[in-house]
Amino acid sequence: MGTYDTMWEGLGLDLRRHESLMGILGEFYPMLYLSQKDRPKGMEYFDFVVSEIHGLRVKELLEHKKKGGKVVGTFCVYVPDEILMAAGAIGVGLCGGAEFSIPDAEKTLPRDLCPLIKSVYGFKDAKICPYLQACDMLVGETTCDGKKKVWELLKQELDVHVMEVPQKKVEPEARALWRAEVRKLLKRMEELSGRRITNEKLAEALSLTNGKRKALDRLYMARRADPAPISGKDALLVSQIAFYDDVRRFTEKTNALAAEAEERGEKGKGVLAGSKRVLVTGTPMAIPNWKLHHVIETSGAVVAAEETCTGARYFHNPEVKPGRTLGETLDRIADRYLETPCACFTPNDRRIENVVSMAREWNAAGVVQYVLKFCQIYSIEGILVEKALKKAGIPVITVETDYGMGDMEQLSTRMAAFVEMI
Amino acid sequence: MGTYDTMWEGLGLDLRRHESLMGILGEFYPMLYLSQKDRPKGMEYFDFVVSEIHGLRVKELLEHKKKGGKVVGTFCVYVPDEILMAAGAIGVGLCGGAEFSIPDAEKTLPRDLCPLIKSVYGFKDAKICPYLQACDMLVGETTCDGKKKVWELLKQELDVHVMEVPQKKVEPEARALWRAEVRKLLKRMEELSGRRITNEKLAEALSLTNGKRKALDRLYMARRADPAPISGKDALLVSQIAFYDDVRRFTEKTNALAAEAEERGEKGKGVLAGSKRVLVTGTPMAIPNWKLHHVIETSGAVVAAEETCTGARYFHNPEVKPGRTLGETLDRIADRYLETPCACFTPNDRRIENVVSMAREWNAAGVVQYVLKFCQIYSIEGILVEKALKKAGIPVITVETDYGMGDMEQLSTRMAAFVEMI
Repeated sequence: MGTYDTMWEGLGLDLRRHESLMGILGEFYPMLYLSQKDRPKGMEYFDFVVSEIHGLRVKELLEHKKKGGKVVGTFCVYVPDEILMAAGAIGVGLCGGAEFSIPDAEKTLPRDLCPLIKSVYGFKDAKICPYLQACDMLVGETTCDGKKKVWELLKQELDVHVMEVPQKKVEPEARALWRAEVRKLLKRMEELSGRRITNEKLAEALSLTNGKRKALDRLYMARRADPAPISGKDALLVSQIAFYDDVRRFTEKTNALAAEAEERGEKGKGVLAGSKRVLVTGTPMAIPNWKLHHVIETSGAVVAAEETCTGARYFHNPEVKPGRTLGETLDRIADRYLETPCACFTPNDRRIENVVSMAREWNAAGVVQYVLKFCQIYSIEGILVEKALKKAGIPVITVETDYGMGDMEQLSTRMAAFVEMI
Repeated sequence: MGTYDTMWEGLGLDLRRHESLMGILGEFYPMLYLSQKDRPKGMEYFDFVVSEIHGLRVKELLEHKKKGGKVVGTFCVYVPDEILMAAGAIGVGLCGGAEFSIPDAEKTLPRDLCPLIKSVYGFKDAKICPYLQACDMLVGETTCDGKKKVWELLKQELDVHVMEVPQKKVEPEARALWRAEVRKLLKRMEELSGRRITNEKLAEALSLTNGKRKALDRLYMARRADPAPISGKDALLVSQIAFYDDVRRFTEKTNALAAEAEERGEKGKGVLAGSKRVLVTGTPMAIPNWKLHHVIETSGAVVAAEETCTGARYFHNPEVKPGRTLGETLDRIADRYLETPCACFTPNDRRIENVVSMAREWNAAGVVQYVLKFCQIYSIEGILVEKALKKAGIPVITVETDYGMGDMEQLSTRMAAFVEMI
């Protein structure tokens, strides 16, 4: 038996299937990640985190639970982590990025659903994700039709709290609704944890999430350097790990990596020399979904930045200052999260403007728009994104795909042609 | 030139394509409708409406416009028709039910979108729907991701007002948001029409919509008789026509049809004698989408009732009594519409309970669940609907399809097997 087998068994995992999932990851990671040249030294920590992906961090979660703490699964950058933390809970982002569990999901769910939702549903159904198994509660939201309705299925077996995200954010009633939803989450977390959330506790948690967001922001700012001080693939991994790693450790390691990237920038040192810079925009890439970045960075380009939920949308407006009262702090938190320019809003002009300005600020020669198959909000909004980019004179390619490997060759051909053109 | 060619040309229609669309309808309608045996005499009016589908009613709309009235297109049973009428406007339901315009839509929209949305988008793009062309404004809503984002595209060319429908209806803030949205529609309609909407005007409009809803409800109650006094196909057509016909004339004709159906019920006279009764539930069927009903009613069954937006969801809680003030009346209207059990809500238990109770009340031997391809909310909720029906001992079959005719044979085979089994 391996080191963690007893732990995984205790969580009710299907050990045989889990082992085969780990086997796939163990094969892909060296090929996709460790083979990269000139990586920053600071990536060693993140490589270590991946090598322990279902080990050390899960062990930490279980130790936290043993001490009476709670573990709460989330699926969206809209769920305020500060509130979970203020209740002494650890939040873990659970979006699924693996093809492996999709056939399990398709036994129940319609096939015409985005792979991210199917992946996580399959993980639950087949019992192959230790994070999901460790959760005391899940917090879902209503950012898309697929997720909104899948919570109803998960509720039959798990404790799921659903937050309503409004759809037209500029209206005062939408803000009021969202502020109320944030308060309901606080109440729900107090019930779950048996701890009262005071303004002081929330301010403490805010100092941690602010620090994490600022570290990610700092890394992104360093990525403005040309040549890119870090590959997009590596930067994506950092963002993916942000969703479930220990917040203090993650912030420290990300700051160290950012400092290294800054130094590289000053010295004109970088990766993938001579590559063309692109901005990636669109749907999130949950770990271990590295497909698009791999295609781009083996086609003569480097990803300069990501306008995605596993990118800049995660840490925009990084700092929230605590208010004098709990209510004031909560409103500020709610307002910060409401600013996130997700395609679930109508209209969503701010995101479209943001894509254009990020392409310019990160000096991208082109934009790769990423749309997960069957994601209706991003695919339709993508038509407007394309239009705005063309108007701004910025070349754009839209890639619609899922987690399968069947279209890799075709994607590479298209990408190489795009990179040559820009 | 035909009788209406000048009118259609004036609306900017593509006459050649429009003629070919009319040709298809002219071929299908006699085959699907006029060939039915023992139809109630009251259906003659509705046959006439179809024979004039892009003629007489469009002429009426244009005459209304000439007198200074407005025409407003809608796409959902959530848009309160009363408010349009109180501003002296005519509301027309514009959901698309024709395969014909889908290739036009797919030039722009993703293919993985429900045919209803693609159909209407194609009608707009190819200029083949005189109703759309006659509209001064469209009122969209946020009931699904696909529609929500397509309004953003349509807004580039047309005047579109979007109403936010909340997603968790039981919360007080959701009700507040919706009531505010209803008020914003009133304001928008006042601006468009240049007329003030008073409580008296609204009460007057309510008496008309109440009457229409009660007539439809009456027809449905008559359909509880066994044998069915009217085919499901005919009843569906009546519902479809409810969305765009003159409200007074429609109410009168539907009441006459209901009276005839009641009389048939008392005399034990009906259609499709010996057929098994089924309830249809699921996604709406916009005119001329008669596919599923045709399959069912040529497979040994008769549709006893529809739990759809082109069925019972349209006229539930038929009567809204005016309040003493405009605000009170508006709140009552908002509250009535909020009760509509659309799958856009989470959770949506009321619909699921309603499907079970309707199956019993209309004495259905089984339920046919209809899911338009790529409709995520109904397909996922459908899993819970199936579960509830099975628990209640009611056989159920789920049919996922689009507007194409390619799967007709396969559907008929499946349906015949289901009907034999129940």
